[in-house]
Amino acid sequence: MQINNILIVSPMFMELQLLIEKEQIEKNFRYLPEAELTFTDLEWADALVCFNLSSNIDYSQVKWVHSLGAGVDKFLYGKSWDEDVLLTRTVCSFGQRIAEYCLSYILKDLQFHDQFSVAKSNKSWNPITPMLLSNQKVMIYGTGEIGQTVARIFSALGVEVYGVSLSGKDKDYFNEVMTIETHFSRLSEMNYLINTLPLTEQTASLLNEKIFERLSNVGLINVGRGASLDETAMLNALNNQHIRFAVLDVFSKEPLPVENPVWDHPNVHITPHISAVTTPDEAVACFIETLNKIEGNKQILNKVDVKKGY
Amino acid sequence: MQINNILIVSPMFMELQLLIEKEQIEKNFRYLPEAELTFTDLEWADALVCFNLSSNIDYSQVKWVHSLGAGVDKFLYGKSWDEDVLLTRTVCSFGQRIAEYCLSYILKDLQFHDQFSVAKSNKSWNPITPMLLSNQKVMIYGTGEIGQTVARIFSALGVEVYGVSLSGKDKDYFNEVMTIETHFSRLSEMNYLINTLPLTEQTASLLNEKIFERLSNVGLINVGRGASLDETAMLNALNNQHIRFAVLDVFSKEPLPVENPVWDHPNVHITPHISAVTTPDEAVACFIETLNKIEGNKQILNKVDVKKGY
Repeated sequence: MQINNILIVSPMFMELQLLIEKEQIEKNFRYLPEAELTFTDLEWADALVCFNLSSNIDYSQVKWVHSLGAGVDKFLYGKSWDEDVLLTRTVCSFGQRIAEYCLSYILKDLQFHDQFSVAKSNKSWNPITPMLLSNQKVMIYGTGEIGQTVARIFSALGVEVYGVSLSGKDKDYFNEVMTIETHFSRLSEMNYLINTLPLTEQTASLLNEKIFERLSNVGLINVGRGASLDETAMLNALNNQHIRFAVLDVFSKEPLPVENPVWDHPNVHITPHISAVTTPDEAVACFIETLNKIEGNKQILNKVDVKKGY
Repeated sequence: MQINNILIVSPMFMELQLLIEKEQIEKNFRYLPEAELTFTDLEWADALVCFNLSSNIDYSQVKWVHSLGAGVDKFLYGKSWDEDVLLTRTVCSFGQRIAEYCLSYILKDLQFHDQFSVAKSNKSWNPITPMLLSNQKVMIYGTGEIGQTVARIFSALGVEVYGVSLSGKDKDYFNEVMTIETHFSRLSEMNYLINTLPLTEQTASLLNEKIFERLSNVGLINVGRGASLDETAMLNALNNQHIRFAVLDVFSKEPLPVENPVWDHPNVHITPHISAVTTPDEAVACFIETLNKIEGNKQILNKVDVKKGY
């Protein structure tokens, strides 16, 4: 595939321009924010590099769309895709970033940060023995690149890690990988659940009351997609002690509307979709690597299977 | 060395008794709290197993003293020790426990837990990008069993780990080990300092203004001994931004008196000496292992060098 004209559409288009120009790539580039994107730009472009465009853009004008994020549900979920257009996504340190995010909240819990913070404000010396990672069992939804990196880091720290995937196929670093159908019997043993799944037709509202009712006092972390989690069922499970606390980085609607009741639940931690950001440096490195592979007719590991949706 | 009569003196003497009796050891045991300890008990005993006794006990009555904690400053610091008496200490999961404690507070910082907690209470969606462990440099004071376990776990997570020891001898998992004298030039690069040193004549007030004045906005964690840290100098360094925050698990006087000003500093986290607790199970396992080695004339790795003080 021959790529000559590349359209970079992003709120951080100026930072991307600075970084790409350093690389002296012999292509024609246009850099712009989405508000300035015109039909003429799309007609001109062979490739479109963007994070999240409004739904009325006709992607089929170009040969290649490269997503600046890891998730591509914005392109595929509930939409049709012209299979002649190559879709690739950014793969970088997301796994490491998400693992550190999850680890931070699990350690906060095991080390009783909140309890010691309250004790400090009361000047109260009240020893509680922290719990060790090696006594914890974690179920990770999603055994792809991100889930597997989380599993690798957690298992190296002694955590007993289980996985859930569509296929249920064994993967390194997981004690056992199950399918949705077979994983229910294991749920009552778990201390923490981590969702890393992409949003597809099969994962929408996957984390629902059928799972929650089998849990006992778990910590739930959602770093996948907001629409994979049934929020109402989660709030019920929090109030019934099936879920002890939830850490949510992703939501069906972002920014999370102020009227959403999860803001008010005392046992919900909210972060603004920061667990796996693409830094401009990493985004540019991945884009250039992908471009070189396309032009060199090499295997493109970050090509999206548009049928699967990830 | 032949050991027949063993005196177990501890606030948790009943738990220890239950666990030791399960092992059916053919020795004579007496279990009691310190308040009931008499001179007759000490005359009877070949071995004394205890955590922290008041200073007026004459240990030289016995052949062997086994400390239920890792630190033995309570026996040696500022005291004289009869070198005919063998002193051993408990070595168990302290390294792992301390590593998880330190990791929890470093991740809390890198992941902006406090900032996101405030944002949540304001229902404010305000993205900040967490920082990665692989961009951090940590200086660990003490390269013994505990410091080395912390270094192993941190370096596996991508942290750049430096060590400080009396000898400055290279150790696995450290990028570089320095002496106190040679480590000053590296201090300005560090993001975090972790003290794991035992309390000896050489480590008393070792963390003082000479170190603090070279720091820039670091996180300081003390899991060694309180008396190794000059608290007044630390409070000044906190107010001058040399130290950004401190996490203190150990204090010169414990429980920390309510009038101590560190309680009131907003950037000090206080925990009640819980980063490396001895669980009764682990204490008993280590005691029995040590007893077997003494009686089998095997090498006792947890023997204290009373001249060094650890």
